[in-house]
Amino acid sequence: MYKLVLVRHGESQWNLENRFTGWHDVDLTESGVAQAKNAGRLLKEAGFEFDQAYSSVLVRAIRTLNIITEEMGQMWLPVERHWRLNERHYGALTGLDKAETAAKHGDEQVKVWRRSFDIPPPAVDESSEHFPGHDRRYKGIDPRALPKAESLALTIDRVLPYWHDVISPAIQANKRVIIAAHGNSLRALVKYLDNMSNEEILELNIPTGVPLVYELDKDLKPISKEYLGDAAQIKAMMDAVAKQGQAKK
Amino acid sequence: MYKLVLVRHGESQWNLENRFTGWHDVDLTESGVAQAKNAGRLLKEAGFEFDQAYSSVLVRAIRTLNIITEEMGQMWLPVERHWRLNERHYGALTGLDKAETAAKHGDEQVKVWRRSFDIPPPAVDESSEHFPGHDRRYKGIDPRALPKAESLALTIDRVLPYWHDVISPAIQANKRVIIAAHGNSLRALVKYLDNMSNEEILELNIPTGVPLVYELDKDLKPISKEYLGDAAQIKAMMDAVAKQGQAKK
Repeated sequence: MYKLVLVRHGESQWNLENRFTGWHDVDLTESGVAQAKNAGRLLKEAGFEFDQAYSSVLVRAIRTLNIITEEMGQMWLPVERHWRLNERHYGALTGLDKAETAAKHGDEQVKVWRRSFDIPPPAVDESSEHFPGHDRRYKGIDPRALPKAESLALTIDRVLPYWHDVISPAIQANKRVIIAAHGNSLRALVKYLDNMSNEEILELNIPTGVPLVYELDKDLKPISKEYLGDAAQIKAMMDAVAKQGQAKK
Repeated sequence: MYKLVLVRHGESQWNLENRFTGWHDVDLTESGVAQAKNAGRLLKEAGFEFDQAYSSVLVRAIRTLNIITEEMGQMWLPVERHWRLNERHYGALTGLDKAETAAKHGDEQVKVWRRSFDIPPPAVDESSEHFPGHDRRYKGIDPRALPKAESLALTIDRVLPYWHDVISPAIQANKRVIIAAHGNSLRALVKYLDNMSNEEILELNIPTGVPLVYELDKDLKPISKEYLGDAAQIKAMMDAVAKQGQAKK
């Protein structure tokens, strides 16, 4: 039996400002830092020991992982940072205030862009600062492999090769793995592991900074799944995530 | 032409207390954190962009690198942490106060243990907490490959395979490399690159938290070498390192 831990990064500056973030590289808020510390403390108290860590190449996930491994006294863990674990790319919506977008386009259109399974938002222009091709960290990647806008379906298609090629083999080689990533890149993994339908995954809201612990059998099928921490508090956080993107009344 | 940057970690708690540290995993002091920030700022101001980072598996080097890449806005850099970049293992001296050891054994014996090229200090006992075999981060390494005490010569023998197998090929593949490590593991690299004699390397004191920038030709022979920052300040830091280990009068 294997264990796998997923953690969504703590609250970021743009979560707080209610803006579409995606691949834009914002940092954690103070509250996000506190969430990451708490995640590390919970994992330490539960006696977790890891062999391999993964994160996206975005600061909010990298810092969340740094803080967690620091809290656990496991800063020395090997870490691999990869763009395939990045958040969903919100295309031309990147940087827009969610409530304003909702007021302009209507709650329903925003809900379609944020919550439909396979309808991507409008693509980002190649001249935009939000086109990944301008960022040095994506140099060497064929520009045609870099997203200009992603639906959840496209995000899943982009995340899963990294699961199959890198993470899954590591787990099967008995590495105890922790992944620090984003709401939608983690949805991709959860949908795959739990074999969820397109509708089910849209209803799933992963709270920030709460370790999600899977027990997996030898074929990496889930035996159990639980969030570490106080159940009522976690429920409140999931509800808060679900409310994001609705226009303020 | 290639560029390579070496940085010795900022001041650690045991540097401050003047104790033999080696593989013992102490953290940076506040002053060490400030040194690392300064190193990051200097590199950023000089326009450095890296493609690959390396550090030891010890917290003081890992944190130094984290702080530097954070200051530079390059937290996303791929990083490889490896025990071969660790500090010299001080064997049974680990944890002893340098001034007390000097008062007990005499300045000369301490100088032999710290500064002779190939006389290792007494070996650490396998039952000691300072024997690396007890530490999970070295699991999977043949215990016979793990040091119980190292001279500078033994440290060099342990560091250079990592240079030849990993770092040197990365540089020749046009990766711009930064290495955050320790006084003696960096001496190993400097001795090799500069083709220094055993006597010369013993006289070299690398200051903490100051980026050492090499320009290398296509065969990785040095064309130039300089510390970034204020020359007088760097000289004072090198002198301070040289004075460590002499008994307090």
